[in-house]
Amino acid sequence: MSDQPQSIRDLSEVELIARLFSDYAPQDPAVVVGIGDDASIRRGRPGWLELVTTDVLVEDTHFRWSAEHVHAQALGHKALAVNISDIAAMGGAPHSAYVGLAVPGSLEVSSVEALVDGMRCCARHYGVDILGGDTVAAEQLTLAVTLVGEVEEGCAIRRDGARPGDEIFVTGYLGDSAAGLHELEGGQTSTFSDLVQRHQRPEPRVAWGRVIATSGLAHAMLDLSDGLSSDLPRICQASNVGAVVDVSALPMSVDLRSFCREKKLAPDAMALHGGEDYELLVVGDAALAELVPPPGTSRLTRIGTIVAEPGVWQRHGLGGALTPLASQGWRHFG
Amino acid sequence: MSDQPQSIRDLSEVELIARLFSDYAPQDPAVVVGIGDDASIRRGRPGWLELVTTDVLVEDTHFRWSAEHVHAQALGHKALAVNISDIAAMGGAPHSAYVGLAVPGSLEVSSVEALVDGMRCCARHYGVDILGGDTVAAEQLTLAVTLVGEVEEGCAIRRDGARPGDEIFVTGYLGDSAAGLHELEGGQTSTFSDLVQRHQRPEPRVAWGRVIATSGLAHAMLDLSDGLSSDLPRICQASNVGAVVDVSALPMSVDLRSFCREKKLAPDAMALHGGEDYELLVVGDAALAELVPPPGTSRLTRIGTIVAEPGVWQRHGLGGALTPLASQGWRHFG
Repeated sequence: MSDQPQSIRDLSEVELIARLFSDYAPQDPAVVVGIGDDASIRRGRPGWLELVTTDVLVEDTHFRWSAEHVHAQALGHKALAVNISDIAAMGGAPHSAYVGLAVPGSLEVSSVEALVDGMRCCARHYGVDILGGDTVAAEQLTLAVTLVGEVEEGCAIRRDGARPGDEIFVTGYLGDSAAGLHELEGGQTSTFSDLVQRHQRPEPRVAWGRVIATSGLAHAMLDLSDGLSSDLPRICQASNVGAVVDVSALPMSVDLRSFCREKKLAPDAMALHGGEDYELLVVGDAALAELVPPPGTSRLTRIGTIVAEPGVWQRHGLGGALTPLASQGWRHFG
Repeated sequence: MSDQPQSIRDLSEVELIARLFSDYAPQDPAVVVGIGDDASIRRGRPGWLELVTTDVLVEDTHFRWSAEHVHAQALGHKALAVNISDIAAMGGAPHSAYVGLAVPGSLEVSSVEALVDGMRCCARHYGVDILGGDTVAAEQLTLAVTLVGEVEEGCAIRRDGARPGDEIFVTGYLGDSAAGLHELEGGQTSTFSDLVQRHQRPEPRVAWGRVIATSGLAHAMLDLSDGLSSDLPRICQASNVGAVVDVSALPMSVDLRSFCREKKLAPDAMALHGGEDYELLVVGDAALAELVPPPGTSRLTRIGTIVAEPGVWQRHGLGGALTPLASQGWRHFG
């Protein structure tokens, strides 16, 4: 009995959810996907599936609160953006948000106004209406956002459809957000302000998600929230396959390369393990490479291949030796 | 500028929401009701409206955590039940729940299991599927629940439709939950265990809400969460009318009367001001009195009348003198 967990900090989030819900089955036949993917899927109006996702951001766990309003605004943006990204990862378009705000009584009214302003601006930008919420007193600032969206029937992309021989793609650049966080933690925001911006104001890939979903070429997709080395294994485990990542193909921005040169950091490691880029990780047909990118974005970058053997591997270039790609995920309750 | 609020504790929840969202208008023409009622209303599948509500419960603000599992189970039940009650208050049937859990790392795994068990039992009882969630670390236990339901087009009951001459009804008994809380706070749970049960395991009136909504006889409705003296003014303000409550007509249980005799408390005050009964407050046609109650419940009780003049008044019996009924609401952030 010595390895029986006693308190929550002995469990990862995945382990906790498994304990609480592994035996759970929804009753309603309208439910297509329940707990376990980026969003739930339920049959909605004719020809459409309803997608719902929820995320909770807690002070000190997910962010460090600053009284500067620019940060409050960014925090409001981000709390909504991470949920929008979950809907994008299923190929859907978001439409309605519900916001639970738990707020310390000592917080300045102007800070809460800035936070909600950030949320409202993000909502407007992505065509989302804020339709409800709850505000309560708490010791830590906590933002619980639930977002509803929809996707055409037959177009929702889950994480469990990857097949051996599929190719692996990503949108945009990897590692920028982690570099931006590094700058913020060092108190530096001016030199690499674009990287800081990428961390503070992620731009979920809704338009790309819609292009990918309606192309019919993708078999599995999720958004990169914890970093490629943590998120790619989720697709592999759900699909019961493995993956090989070509590190030399990872898309990295000019800013990230300059940043890493200056800080003497390895850009590969930032791109492999850095979290919160909120780019899409897409698995499917090689023809995904030909999709016409939405305005303001560039083509998908092919970064690897799905294989039959379970496990996630990395190599440098086609001739490189295969080494295991270790997940550098974090334990939420530790 | 001296009366400009500086921190959140200077504002009530209503004032805060007004500051943040009074100028907010949803863009999507599918939206019927946004922020401000028990639930949002949005056009869904043909002939139906989709209802969504969200509530956040925070340790020490809304409940005092106890390590005893019976309490964890009850807390899980209640966190979902208060949301189900919001859907019932619009006349709807709930179907899907999303649960954000912020949990201290020191919490026992068995307590979290008991809490989720309470939620699962409540969900099953009311035909709700738990379809998603998020678990994160926090200093205070926090439960953010979002619930989705639906109601037939034309049947949703808002809080702004009360008209002079309408009669005011309630389901069930008032004041039981406040009495149960009084017992719990005194460390007593055995003598009046039914009252304690009413506080810990409220039974939202979904079946009654459906009967009322489909009857077409109700003009306004909400659920009694903060107490009649706080909730009735919400209908009056939203509808721009006033109300007269006949205190002698308030439905009180035999248990509440015994409890008040023993504790030398006024039962009228418990029924008028006690919160968390989660009974329905219904305003509309006198014929509401004739509705056939769902199994296990009794007829609606008529407790007063809507009048044109703004304000909420009480009297004892038809001939009694009118005195103002002061709201005894509480400030969330104080």
